[in-house]
Amino acid sequence: MPVGTLYGISVGPGDPELLTLKGLRLLKQAPVVAFPAGVGGQPGIAQQIIAKWLRQEQIQLPLTFPYVQDDHLLMQAWKAAAGQVWHYLSQGTDVAFACEGDVGFYSTFTYLAQTLQHLHPSVEIQIVPGVSSPLAAAAVLGLPLTLRHQRLVILPALYTATDLENVLGWAEVLVLLKVNSVYKQVWEILHRLQLLERSFIVERATQAGQVIHHNLVEKPNLDLPYFSLLIVQAEKPIR
Amino acid sequence: MPVGTLYGISVGPGDPELLTLKGLRLLKQAPVVAFPAGVGGQPGIAQQIIAKWLRQEQIQLPLTFPYVQDDHLLMQAWKAAAGQVWHYLSQGTDVAFACEGDVGFYSTFTYLAQTLQHLHPSVEIQIVPGVSSPLAAAAVLGLPLTLRHQRLVILPALYTATDLENVLGWAEVLVLLKVNSVYKQVWEILHRLQLLERSFIVERATQAGQVIHHNLVEKPNLDLPYFSLLIVQAEKPIR
Repeated sequence: MPVGTLYGISVGPGDPELLTLKGLRLLKQAPVVAFPAGVGGQPGIAQQIIAKWLRQEQIQLPLTFPYVQDDHLLMQAWKAAAGQVWHYLSQGTDVAFACEGDVGFYSTFTYLAQTLQHLHPSVEIQIVPGVSSPLAAAAVLGLPLTLRHQRLVILPALYTATDLENVLGWAEVLVLLKVNSVYKQVWEILHRLQLLERSFIVERATQAGQVIHHNLVEKPNLDLPYFSLLIVQAEKPIR
Repeated sequence: MPVGTLYGISVGPGDPELLTLKGLRLLKQAPVVAFPAGVGGQPGIAQQIIAKWLRQEQIQLPLTFPYVQDDHLLMQAWKAAAGQVWHYLSQGTDVAFACEGDVGFYSTFTYLAQTLQHLHPSVEIQIVPGVSSPLAAAAVLGLPLTLRHQRLVILPALYTATDLENVLGWAEVLVLLKVNSVYKQVWEILHRLQLLERSFIVERATQAGQVIHHNLVEKPNLDLPYFSLLIVQAEKPIR
């Protein structure tokens, strides 16, 4: 029996209307729809985004991906999730995995896909790209992310002061993801480099709880959620 | 009379199904749909992407943005395009401007928007983000663009050998846009750094003429189109 296909479906940053037509078609067609399980009894972000499109006949498969750094625990979680998905794929049933943002951009989907490919090399995987958070954030700010010759750097986390200063020495646009845990240090550096006036933070871009911060000069302390990103436009936009 | 709204609609990299639901809704609602004019009598890329969604009652407004570096000529073209769009906006008519990729990512839309804001500060602009070419290219390659702690650099053009070597010294993932004009030099550098096996080129990602190049070791010479991008995964993906 031929195995089913795993579709990695990028469902965008939060606004359910930022799903693509292709993503929606494949979500609707899939007999099984998987997504990262929510935390503390709350539905996860991807699950909220797709909720209105799911039909009762579809099997919903929440998969647990713990927020930990321990490689062994992570690997265990990926294997367990891969097993749950393979259960359906091995019977010839397609599975759509919905993930917030783009599934190729710092996404949980990759670990599931790589674990499956490792355990079951015959697995068929198709990826549907989507709207990533830096572009969603730029859109809600009403700004372009990048123009013309501008060099763009995206740092996902764990950036040091040295990293930041080096990057800001040559890149025109810098995006820091998950800035919540290091905001105070980042603020100090941007202050020293006189870049606070060209820096912007978006919390939960396009989600219900979206917050935008301009005027960072006045905000050395901010209590930010996990899904917060900072955009530095180190070069003044040309007109 | 209130002025109309200009919607900057990201229509994605090429596959018409990669349009978002929001982009499609706003495109269908707009009395006037603008897009970059094609070259040599051919329809432009954005125009091809949206063709099937346009209704006969909608006014189609091709806008000319020449492929030149001369700032004076560019400014003239942006002013002319802004004038064509303002003609409708000033009468209270909404205009949807459709642009390939994401309108905030190295896009012609920004020049139109900034010129309009400069000439008519009362203009209302809304941006709908979309699927950008690096994520579309990663999807068709079946690869994640970025994972975990990986630092991503995107260089749009005009990169020097020194730029590339510096970036590859610390970034885990590098994307070069419009690699066509400098491919030979880039190949030499990647060869020297032994990164050709972790490098991939996608021509016209998700468009009808899509071509994928693996095995760049064997391809020191490639005749690439304008819409070609190169992804270097300088760090081996973890499993």
